Amino acid sequence: MQNRIITIGREYGSGGREIGEKLAEKLGIPCYDKEIVEQASIDSGLLEEDIIEKGEHLSALSKLSSHFTLYNLYSNMTKNDLIWHAQVKAIKQLAEKGSCVIVGRCADYILRDRENVINVFIFSDMDKRIERISQLHPEVSPEKFIRDIDKKRADYYKHFTEMEWGESRHYDICLNSSALGIDKCVDLLCDLY
Amino acid sequence: MQNRIITIGREYGSGGREIGEKLAEKLGIPCYDKEIVEQASIDSGLLEEDIIEKGEHLSALSKLSSHFTLYNLYSNMTKNDLIWHAQVKAIKQLAEKGSCVIVGRCADYILRDRENVINVFIFSDMDKRIERISQLHPEVSPEKFIRDIDKKRADYYKHFTEMEWGESRHYDICLNSSALGIDKCVDLLCDLY
Repeated sequence: MQNRIITIGREYGSGGREIGEKLAEKLGIPCYDKEIVEQASIDSGLLEEDIIEKGEHLSALSKLSSHFTLYNLYSNMTKNDLIWHAQVKAIKQLAEKGSCVIVGRCADYILRDRENVINVFIFSDMDKRIERISQLHPEVSPEKFIRDIDKKRADYYKHFTEMEWGESRHYDICLNSSALGIDKCVDLLCDLY
Repeated sequence: MQNRIITIGREYGSGGREIGEKLAEKLGIPCYDKEIVEQASIDSGLLEEDIIEKGEHLSALSKLSSHFTLYNLYSNMTKNDLIWHAQVKAIKQLAEKGSCVIVGRCADYILRDRENVINVFIFSDMDKRIERISQLHPEVSPEKFIRDIDKKRADYYKHFTEMEWGESRHYDICLNSSALGIDKCVDLLCDLY
């Protein structure tokens, strides 16, 4: 049987990553996030820190890490494009490897031609997100921080997919984690799988 | 325990009504749709046909059914407002009566101050909706018909709630009925309840 993949898009602070991890644990399959970065870095020669930083956010045309300059001279691709293509390859490889959960990184779009993919979007009320992020990052102004990251994710998604991030019609199921609770979201997705 | 209400907003042709009816049957609670019209008609004196026609669509300022003219002379409300207020009252009364499923008619917004309400939105890919509506209404051009009704529902929702119809953040769960199937949607909502 073909591998079964669950992709999870999520608003910042909605607990989408936690849901992905708990779901994967319950289903006994891997949840990929850091592995995508590692794989993309190995394949492309890009630094992991670049992929982590720009893997879901567009950046202005900034200079590449020094060891990468030669490659860049031979291509017309921007740093964003390089990271995008490295991630696309990594996500496709991981999906080929076995059933899994993939959090973020436009995996819903990247795997759109595969069968047996469930695309999920997790969102949450702002007050609950503020509460969550205030605990994780007490040094930031939480609402602005959340809106900035959401905007970056939306811009990145729009740039590469030409679709609106978080618009329900691009997903199979959208869940409000603040209304339903993290564990109920996990249970529902487990049932769905 | 307070009554538990499930409201279902739905794109035209998505099978949202069918999901509501099957869910209510499975849960052993009523699914209200026509009852809202009857109740609103009894309370307001408006004709059922007016409520059916305009209960989810804004209309231009058209003349009221003749027996209603006197009331209209004494108020500054438009026909849309009259129907809206009659529906609000009916939906609140039905929610007070016992646990239930309510399809459409901005019930999510009308019951926003109640606890124990699960707000659901059902959407579907256009090709599946065309298939469904072509069978139900072979006389119409299905895609245009679907888009027209969706637009009317969206305008009506926006007018009275000042929110965007179908935008995931206004709901607790949004389901793609064409991807998941009607019965799977019913099962998931049953679990959630």
